[in-house]
Amino acid sequence: MVSSLISRQLALSLHKNLWLSAPARCRYVSKAAAKTQADFDYDGPSMKTSVPGPRSQELTKQLGEMQNVGAVNFFCNYEESRGNYLVDVDGNRMLDLYTQISSIPIGYNHPALLKLMANPNNLSTFVNRPALGILPPENFPDRLAESLLSVAPSGMTRVQTMACGSCSNENAFKSMFIWYKNKERGHSTPSNEDLSTCMINQVPGCPDLSILSFMGSFHGRTMGCLATTHSKAIHKLDIPSFDWPIAPFPRLQYPLEEFSRENAQEESRCLEEVEDLIVKWRQKGKPVAGIVVEPIQAEGGDNHASPDFFRSLRKITRKHGCAFHVDEVQTGGGTTGKFWAHEHWGLEDPADIVSFSKKLLTGGYFQRDELQANEPYRIFNTWMGDPSKNLFLSEVLNVIRRENLLEEVTRSGKALLNGLYELQAQYPGILSRARGQGTFCAVDICDDGTRNSILLKARDKGVILGGCGERSIRFRPALIFKEYHAQIFLNIFSDVLAQLK
Amino acid sequence: MVSSLISRQLALSLHKNLWLSAPARCRYVSKAAAKTQADFDYDGPSMKTSVPGPRSQELTKQLGEMQNVGAVNFFCNYEESRGNYLVDVDGNRMLDLYTQISSIPIGYNHPALLKLMANPNNLSTFVNRPALGILPPENFPDRLAESLLSVAPSGMTRVQTMACGSCSNENAFKSMFIWYKNKERGHSTPSNEDLSTCMINQVPGCPDLSILSFMGSFHGRTMGCLATTHSKAIHKLDIPSFDWPIAPFPRLQYPLEEFSRENAQEESRCLEEVEDLIVKWRQKGKPVAGIVVEPIQAEGGDNHASPDFFRSLRKITRKHGCAFHVDEVQTGGGTTGKFWAHEHWGLEDPADIVSFSKKLLTGGYFQRDELQANEPYRIFNTWMGDPSKNLFLSEVLNVIRRENLLEEVTRSGKALLNGLYELQAQYPGILSRARGQGTFCAVDICDDGTRNSILLKARDKGVILGGCGERSIRFRPALIFKEYHAQIFLNIFSDVLAQLK
Repeated sequence: MVSSLISRQLALSLHKNLWLSAPARCRYVSKAAAKTQADFDYDGPSMKTSVPGPRSQELTKQLGEMQNVGAVNFFCNYEESRGNYLVDVDGNRMLDLYTQISSIPIGYNHPALLKLMANPNNLSTFVNRPALGILPPENFPDRLAESLLSVAPSGMTRVQTMACGSCSNENAFKSMFIWYKNKERGHSTPSNEDLSTCMINQVPGCPDLSILSFMGSFHGRTMGCLATTHSKAIHKLDIPSFDWPIAPFPRLQYPLEEFSRENAQEESRCLEEVEDLIVKWRQKGKPVAGIVVEPIQAEGGDNHASPDFFRSLRKITRKHGCAFHVDEVQTGGGTTGKFWAHEHWGLEDPADIVSFSKKLLTGGYFQRDELQANEPYRIFNTWMGDPSKNLFLSEVLNVIRRENLLEEVTRSGKALLNGLYELQAQYPGILSRARGQGTFCAVDICDDGTRNSILLKARDKGVILGGCGERSIRFRPALIFKEYHAQIFLNIFSDVLAQLK
Repeated sequence: MVSSLISRQLALSLHKNLWLSAPARCRYVSKAAAKTQADFDYDGPSMKTSVPGPRSQELTKQLGEMQNVGAVNFFCNYEESRGNYLVDVDGNRMLDLYTQISSIPIGYNHPALLKLMANPNNLSTFVNRPALGILPPENFPDRLAESLLSVAPSGMTRVQTMACGSCSNENAFKSMFIWYKNKERGHSTPSNEDLSTCMINQVPGCPDLSILSFMGSFHGRTMGCLATTHSKAIHKLDIPSFDWPIAPFPRLQYPLEEFSRENAQEESRCLEEVEDLIVKWRQKGKPVAGIVVEPIQAEGGDNHASPDFFRSLRKITRKHGCAFHVDEVQTGGGTTGKFWAHEHWGLEDPADIVSFSKKLLTGGYFQRDELQANEPYRIFNTWMGDPSKNLFLSEVLNVIRRENLLEEVTRSGKALLNGLYELQAQYPGILSRARGQGTFCAVDICDDGTRNSILLKARDKGVILGGCGERSIRFRPALIFKEYHAQIFLNIFSDVLAQLK
């Protein structure tokens, strides 16, 4: 393991050589080579086979005897992976701009995390997983304070951990339903009819309430979440659902500065539709208890909207007495240059619920005081999260602060997006709608087939990317992705595009 | 940590002293003291304060500023906990017969698990959590083979890991819906109408299918699972649900041998109702895609049914073309004396799906070949489980085999249940319906108030128990619970009952 670590000095000189020897069309020779990565990173991609290589194919066949492997890209050697580089079982080393569907905050095998594992005081946290809701460990309040609550979004005083993103959103929805019903009752004491009917799934105990979501959104795949997910048919096909309202999400035209009037109109249209749906569903007898929205629709195609749009949406929830749930499962954790993407909106009236997972390593949600259910066992399950993930998160947050990673993200995101703008100008028949915030960037490709072909070609040249929406590529590097990583990526991407022509 | 370990010899002599000095009414002086615990266990409870003690109360107040703490019992010192003994932050050491809601398989800080953590080859598994569905680690197929698939129930060839019990059941339900729709279509290719309607939660893409469940069941708390959960109103109140059929679960009379005719009639009645509901819901246009059932309804009150009942239920699912899903989240993992509780039934035609979590340390489900969705990304999420939990599970299974823990469970379960029978005979006004399989035992208490008072009194004397149903106490010790632990418990329980009189 140690043998594969390259010293800072060596890495630096290798970087310079790599860039200087790049082909002429590459305009991305870095001027920032001195601003380099911590010494646990590799110096660049290194490819031995096309991907998946023979060993990956063999393992895929083996795993195929045990479960569906249709989505498996390749098998990984996580021991040898480092920083921004994912190493596969055939010895290919790839620059990772997808990071396990955006869930690796500070790269692979970060020394600070390995160090945590070496501390004997932490052993018990891994070996004894508690039922956190009834028997928390002594350090649980302190750990929550130094991890999740230290990055609580404005207005959020309370946090509930959960095991994954779907469970987080499911329980956030439940919190909104409980809050809404208590508000409707004027108190939190259910009637005998409520108590008896809920046992058999009937009204009024199980009320006909709804959550309003947006077309193109993704909030998870368990049945409550899935009723608010509208990104791809394959996620929803054949699964029973709820008759809940679905509003259009703005489809902005790019470049934004050329279409400001059209985009403002588009956002107004969507907001009007939201209000219409709230009224319509109330009349239907299925009142909207809450609205759930992603700051950037990720799975659905990296669809952005303006801060104005979201501020107006917040006002609409107030006007109609619905809760406002911001789903930061993919956007949270610093990747937009702020710790929470919705901090870019400048909300005067904070959200009611903000859910998270992925880069936060544990699922969960923050909530305002009034959203927290008063009675125990309403929001509950056996594990209620996992303290070993909170332990890692505390250290991740230390690294983010110590290394000013939010500033790095802003810087490298700018390099990435500027590079995409330039390539888009160079290849207008292939690329369009380059967009992003921090490193949370995307670009559209002319068609689905070309998009998928670019993803595979880039991978064979040592860059891992992800698709989203119908024909977008999304960039989701770790927070330790630096300007020179952006340059390495852009060089390779430029090669791929040149070969497509 | 090490200083608090008591050597096998010392522990043995302490055990003997403890039992010999017990008060006269205690008939549980062990004859099996020589068959003692591995040397990492403590010798018995040791109480310093009533529970929760002052430190627990202080921490509860602190945590109460961050989340709902209504369910918190006390705070734990997991570092000092060992084997069957949970130590709290006030220095109280309690014999644990509840084990974090039945989720600790081989006790606290088992040396075999600590050893795993010391192996540098395992570090990467903890530090780099992969998106298992797309980028599995090299050892993933082998690890599945040596862990989960090595204990696959009869007829189950495929396994899908998930993060928790609710996610496991949600995805198992989805598998059953997809399987049912493909069967109905005669193929797996959806129509254009299916694809467009599912995006907006409407039929036929999101079909009106249902899952049949039983009154008293508990299958989780996310919205799909919750529609099949019918144990306590507080779990379901205010949460929208599905109009799915709910059958009665047999209410057996005890002792079983005295009521064989009545119980057989009761089971027939429930089975008839199941068939009626399947027909009725088909006529309603909401066909039953699958039936989900626990081998023993745990949260609902430790309700048992006979192997005959379950075999007949399986036949009904075949007759009506529904899938058969056995939820072993609480019963699985060896606690009934077989690794899976449903192995006691002698099913000729295996179940279609068996879900698990808790003692298996990872969630997930086994399924028959034909239940596995053919297309990728239908059963999917970011993490799809957690390889660090599979690592622990492999070692837990090694310990279970090496130490013949299923035999131990059968033995100590017998001691526990016989003790409960005796106490029931001694206190007929308080105890009734003692029942169980392996150590998965329960007893009913005359009323809810007395039950809760017994739980608290037992805890103050150093025994942790859990309630279930309206007035039952459930016993859920770890698999390393031995006969002499049963004796220690019975001594204390006997004291508590004597003081109640």
